[in-house]
Amino acid sequence: MNIRIIFYILGWVLNTVAAMMLVPFGVSVYYKEHNGQYFLICSLIMAMVGIALVRKRPKNIALYAKEGYVVTALSWLLLSFCGAMPLFLSGEIPSFTNALFECISGFTTTGASILHNVEGLSRCMNFWRCFIQLIGGMGVLVFMLALIPSTGGQDLHLMRAESPGPSVTKLVPKVHKTAYYLYIIYFSLTILEIISLLLAGMPLYDSVCTAFTTTSTGGFGIKNTSLGGYSPTIQYVVSVFLFLSGLNYNFYFFLVIKRFKDAFSIQEVKLYTLMFFSAVAVITGNLISSGMHAEESFRHAFHQVGSIMTTAGFTTADFDLWPILSKSILVLLMFIGGCAGSTSGGIKVSRILIYIKTVRKELNQLCHPRNVKIIQMDGKPIAHNVLRSANVFFIVYMMIFVVSFLLVSLDGHDLVTTFTAVASAVGNIGPGLSLVGPTQNFDLFSDFSKYVLMFDMLAGRLEIFPMLVLLYPSTWRKK
Amino acid sequence: MNIRIIFYILGWVLNTVAAMMLVPFGVSVYYKEHNGQYFLICSLIMAMVGIALVRKRPKNIALYAKEGYVVTALSWLLLSFCGAMPLFLSGEIPSFTNALFECISGFTTTGASILHNVEGLSRCMNFWRCFIQLIGGMGVLVFMLALIPSTGGQDLHLMRAESPGPSVTKLVPKVHKTAYYLYIIYFSLTILEIISLLLAGMPLYDSVCTAFTTTSTGGFGIKNTSLGGYSPTIQYVVSVFLFLSGLNYNFYFFLVIKRFKDAFSIQEVKLYTLMFFSAVAVITGNLISSGMHAEESFRHAFHQVGSIMTTAGFTTADFDLWPILSKSILVLLMFIGGCAGSTSGGIKVSRILIYIKTVRKELNQLCHPRNVKIIQMDGKPIAHNVLRSANVFFIVYMMIFVVSFLLVSLDGHDLVTTFTAVASAVGNIGPGLSLVGPTQNFDLFSDFSKYVLMFDMLAGRLEIFPMLVLLYPSTWRKK
Repeated sequence: MNIRIIFYILGWVLNTVAAMMLVPFGVSVYYKEHNGQYFLICSLIMAMVGIALVRKRPKNIALYAKEGYVVTALSWLLLSFCGAMPLFLSGEIPSFTNALFECISGFTTTGASILHNVEGLSRCMNFWRCFIQLIGGMGVLVFMLALIPSTGGQDLHLMRAESPGPSVTKLVPKVHKTAYYLYIIYFSLTILEIISLLLAGMPLYDSVCTAFTTTSTGGFGIKNTSLGGYSPTIQYVVSVFLFLSGLNYNFYFFLVIKRFKDAFSIQEVKLYTLMFFSAVAVITGNLISSGMHAEESFRHAFHQVGSIMTTAGFTTADFDLWPILSKSILVLLMFIGGCAGSTSGGIKVSRILIYIKTVRKELNQLCHPRNVKIIQMDGKPIAHNVLRSANVFFIVYMMIFVVSFLLVSLDGHDLVTTFTAVASAVGNIGPGLSLVGPTQNFDLFSDFSKYVLMFDMLAGRLEIFPMLVLLYPSTWRKK
Repeated sequence: MNIRIIFYILGWVLNTVAAMMLVPFGVSVYYKEHNGQYFLICSLIMAMVGIALVRKRPKNIALYAKEGYVVTALSWLLLSFCGAMPLFLSGEIPSFTNALFECISGFTTTGASILHNVEGLSRCMNFWRCFIQLIGGMGVLVFMLALIPSTGGQDLHLMRAESPGPSVTKLVPKVHKTAYYLYIIYFSLTILEIISLLLAGMPLYDSVCTAFTTTSTGGFGIKNTSLGGYSPTIQYVVSVFLFLSGLNYNFYFFLVIKRFKDAFSIQEVKLYTLMFFSAVAVITGNLISSGMHAEESFRHAFHQVGSIMTTAGFTTADFDLWPILSKSILVLLMFIGGCAGSTSGGIKVSRILIYIKTVRKELNQLCHPRNVKIIQMDGKPIAHNVLRSANVFFIVYMMIFVVSFLLVSLDGHDLVTTFTAVASAVGNIGPGLSLVGPTQNFDLFSDFSKYVLMFDMLAGRLEIFPMLVLLYPSTWRKK
């Protein structure tokens, strides 16, 4: 284990957080809020430690896969800890566990809150909640890779550990450039949404915060009713951007470089769109048949499918009261998630695609044992270890889910609450059903359960393996 | 597709059912029950058709994997249809859908019933319900293989398609002999339980029926309170035999041939025992802490873990009223199931073992990419296609679960009912929670949902692939 490079990278993480905190500090100056000082204080302390750590670049900059996973997991723990500090020190979230939960929920773009009254927070704190979702969405390390001179030749390991999906597609040969382009597309989408929301009549502050939490598929609301209180136009705008944010970013990259045919022939994008609008159609029908007005049914169905499938977690209606078929579909979408190479969580549509192809191949092989087919995606064969790791991912995802479900059930809440709370945490969604439904929050859990859910959120965001490698004894054993 | 051999085997299946039906007919003669005549009538008709089909042995007796799956699936459909006839024709279950449901639930050893008053059935009909569980438990084709002269050199395909577990272990080189030994062990266990139950004070008829449904891990009760009304001693006897019936039969074979060390070093047996008694311990503690008496807590915990994990489905208490942790554990055990090479359902412990080893290998490979390990079980490496098919099984199990869950949720019952009803059907367990809890039955579902659940029961019993191959269009396409 190359400890020096790990500390060096953690130093850069601290510097990045320190720089990030200046933004909410600016917001507090603008709104003349006293509590903004905590951002400045935290920023200074972190910068001091961070600069000390990066002052000397280590001689041995080799970073192998193992270190990549470990440093990614440690970075996210450090980030969460630092990010929680202003919330805690200012007293706006008096319990440290709760502040940490809120911050992990932010960075991992889960959007589950322990706040009973989110409107009671100062503007700079609410801005900070949304801003960490923006940075967490595409990834802090990816952000660093886009801005900071390369830490060595092995940046791909970092990107692989932090980016979602069964395999990392580099848009361009260089990792640094890929990270840069990803952020360009990401920020463009965010700015486009801010403008759209302003045009739809949303105030500037709300537009910025909402756009941050939409394109990151984070889902933190700055109102107690999430998006329920805004106009239908605003709700539609957010829903459209949710759909767009769940798409694989390769799609946008192809659009930008004008390879339209390639863009529209990505199989994952097609399946995602199909599943998305099938779910919207079925839920709309289900809501209409339960007596809701047609436009309202479509609007809520569109929004809620967008919000749950992209794992954002906004709400425009209390879907806990919806008919069972709609709820079942939403619970299922919690597990599926959006596309790989997007900011969304869950298992990801590309893996679902791999699973469908795997099953079809198995059936084919049973029927025609001599006729062995190779599994392809977008016309290219899928590498054996991508297939294997996608299968293992599903297994380990379910294992984490099951163990967490058992641990959280120690709290004694009902099955639906426990089940959907854990599904929501691992999938980085936000709300669940019953006691963690759209009108509720996560404060009802014991501290122990909250830590379990925090682990789940981090594991879900980093696609589990970084957290497991960090905890795996053999990682730390000397050869 | 070799159609002739398929009809030939189906003919033997008909003959087998015809012969089986003479047993409940005998019971009806003993108890002087009028309704026994339906068994005789059905038996004669089936024997006539059956004998016609097997009169000429086909020249081409080649049976490939594909035909093995197809014939297994068709046999089970035929069995279920024939087995339901006496229940329906006698009018004891007036709806054909319900009679079919009851019969499929019997043969697949699920044990879910649509009967509101099981004590209202005649004795011969109740005996039939239990007897089909006995034969379904170890498998009708395996039963045929044990008794009937070989249909050709390819019997292994039949056994593989019908027997549970990631790979078929032949106890002895010949399939015929293996099937024979399996049934010897199986019937010995059943007789041993009948004697134990008689000694514990249970009436003969009840002992026979209960033993049939215990060792087959079927779980049909002949009383409205399942086993709740019997003495604690009887409940303990059943629990012990449930535990024994969930063990891999290789264990008993090793005991019989006095290879004790081999018997006790089967990894699956160890993990099964560990999980079983851990679950018993936790639930006992949970029940005591909720105010139940210690002996009672242990007795119910032992019984319910045995009943759910081996996928039998008896009940001694209404566990729907238990604390949430206990219920969570039971729901989880529904998915795990017992050992491969036993009569139980679910995913099977050996597959869980494979999954744990797979995840450990993946973590090892991430940490030490050059240090590739081979996954072993009981000291032998696991073949690549066994691993792959175990992984695919998990995926396809979950897919079937999810699709059925969505279809059954059209009925509009609550999430817990829908979820556990489907889990219970695919896992061949019996009861679920909420509206399909221990004191309830499955009659509340629509006919459509009942057919979905019937498919699930068959798919679960045959480990899914035979049913999928049957429905897969490519199976029926000519080359």
